[in-house]
Amino acid sequence: MNITICCTDTKTEPWVAGLRAALPGAHVSVWQPGAPQADFAVVWAPPQQFLDEQPGLKVLFNIGAGVDALLRLRLPPGAQVVRLDDAGMSVQMAEYVCHAVIRHFRELDAYEADMRGGRWGYRKPRLRSEFTVGVMGLGVLGERVARALAHFEFPVLGWSRSPKSVPGVRAFEGAGQFDDFLAASRVLVNLLPLTPETENLLDRATLSRLPAGAYLINVARGAHVVEEDLLELIDSGHLAGATLDVFRTEPLPAGHPFWNHPRIVATPHTSARTLRDESIAQIAGKIAALQRGEPLAGVVDRERGY
Amino acid sequence: MNITICCTDTKTEPWVAGLRAALPGAHVSVWQPGAPQADFAVVWAPPQQFLDEQPGLKVLFNIGAGVDALLRLRLPPGAQVVRLDDAGMSVQMAEYVCHAVIRHFRELDAYEADMRGGRWGYRKPRLRSEFTVGVMGLGVLGERVARALAHFEFPVLGWSRSPKSVPGVRAFEGAGQFDDFLAASRVLVNLLPLTPETENLLDRATLSRLPAGAYLINVARGAHVVEEDLLELIDSGHLAGATLDVFRTEPLPAGHPFWNHPRIVATPHTSARTLRDESIAQIAGKIAALQRGEPLAGVVDRERGY
Repeated sequence: MNITICCTDTKTEPWVAGLRAALPGAHVSVWQPGAPQADFAVVWAPPQQFLDEQPGLKVLFNIGAGVDALLRLRLPPGAQVVRLDDAGMSVQMAEYVCHAVIRHFRELDAYEADMRGGRWGYRKPRLRSEFTVGVMGLGVLGERVARALAHFEFPVLGWSRSPKSVPGVRAFEGAGQFDDFLAASRVLVNLLPLTPETENLLDRATLSRLPAGAYLINVARGAHVVEEDLLELIDSGHLAGATLDVFRTEPLPAGHPFWNHPRIVATPHTSARTLRDESIAQIAGKIAALQRGEPLAGVVDRERGY
Repeated sequence: MNITICCTDTKTEPWVAGLRAALPGAHVSVWQPGAPQADFAVVWAPPQQFLDEQPGLKVLFNIGAGVDALLRLRLPPGAQVVRLDDAGMSVQMAEYVCHAVIRHFRELDAYEADMRGGRWGYRKPRLRSEFTVGVMGLGVLGERVARALAHFEFPVLGWSRSPKSVPGVRAFEGAGQFDDFLAASRVLVNLLPLTPETENLLDRATLSRLPAGAYLINVARGAHVVEEDLLELIDSGHLAGATLDVFRTEPLPAGHPFWNHPRIVATPHTSARTLRDESIAQIAGKIAALQRGEPLAGVVDRERGY
């Protein structure tokens, strides 16, 4: 069995060592142009040349939760695309989102700024019962985030393309219930996959349907959001602000207003990092399961896009 | 039945109206010097004169979780002291502590500062398995905080005077296990009651037993911590920093180094605010239970101090 690794912007040696240790019978190497055909590939943002030179690949393991960039390439026709289905990412996502929701709900940024300014003062506590959090996307990550928010007793709504049931979460589904979902979300958390259907979904029209004073947390993809529309709605006061971990262009271009807008908290795409050891263990487990003739979990529907 | 309200720094009218609505048979009023004897009192930082003039009080309801200030006064000999046992405070405490732990663990303050400075950069993720959080005090608030930390898969330790069992929490008890508990706590969360035994418990000797690079979160009472010792251990680099919601003197005095120390996050005693509606409902429920002859929950052991 041949495994090739083709990951841009990634230190590949530990992946080679880890996969060799986990799958002693496998031949594992880092891809070079002209390399022999492999059965399995571990990829992150591979060049088109890699995919063109490896028509015999059976499975492409994408070392991240989002496969939108990979699906825009021309893939080997018989290859299945497999996402990491958790590998330590969902708890990170729950942490990041809960931190952002709590910081906004409890006004901790304002309290900390008060103290640094020498002011000891109280603010009237906001009502938890009015602080409804709407989670867009109820896949592995979205469901984990919704459960964590429910742990803190926020009213939690979920919106997904197909019907999903998560305990403690009021479910909305499909285009027909999208407006009602938005109108009820005081905080909107985006965890959708990026597909042609969801690109630019958060624009002036949809963001305007959020209640006045609503707050956006985007941890999915920058291309879900029309950035100028978001900025206008924040500057006009309809939205209270946003916490953004993803952007249409990454790294964020110099001079972009998101770098230091007073009502936007920005982080450099770090909400759920790929954890190497967990990911290697998961990929090795999936390959071993395949070898035993078991079905493969986490296969992407290439038509649907996630 | 006579209920009197004696709460310093508190808008008392809504408490009068709320208790009247919840207990239609009761006479509810705000205490004035010379007022008639009451059966029950709702208090926050009452003057000694109030207690001296009301020797017939059966129960003092303290509208906060900590009774240390009240117990330093001379109380009517037959009066029971009752704390709010939750009334919406425990979820707030869980929020505050999880926010502080996540912010520190994930280095979100540093990421946000990077972005505001125009820097897009990654930091090596810290290992969750090494980020053990030790919770001192496993009462209503401490147990809730420990459960919330366990939800995020941190290794959680608990230390209490008497044996306590909380699912998912490794328990330490009593003076004999205190050093082992400290040595294992990468983050130390203080939720102890303030008693003569716990005052100044966190001093140079005990804080030095935390592992190098440890972090302190104090949400109990300022007098648990010897502030100069904490500052020295942060400035010497043994401790990475602290999040402090309580201080030996509140408001924090002008010129105090905690106002804007670069490695201390300070907030103005806001980690778990008394929520009026929940508190009124709880006090009214306890009075009604007493009238039905049922035992009273949340009674403070005046000898023990909590």
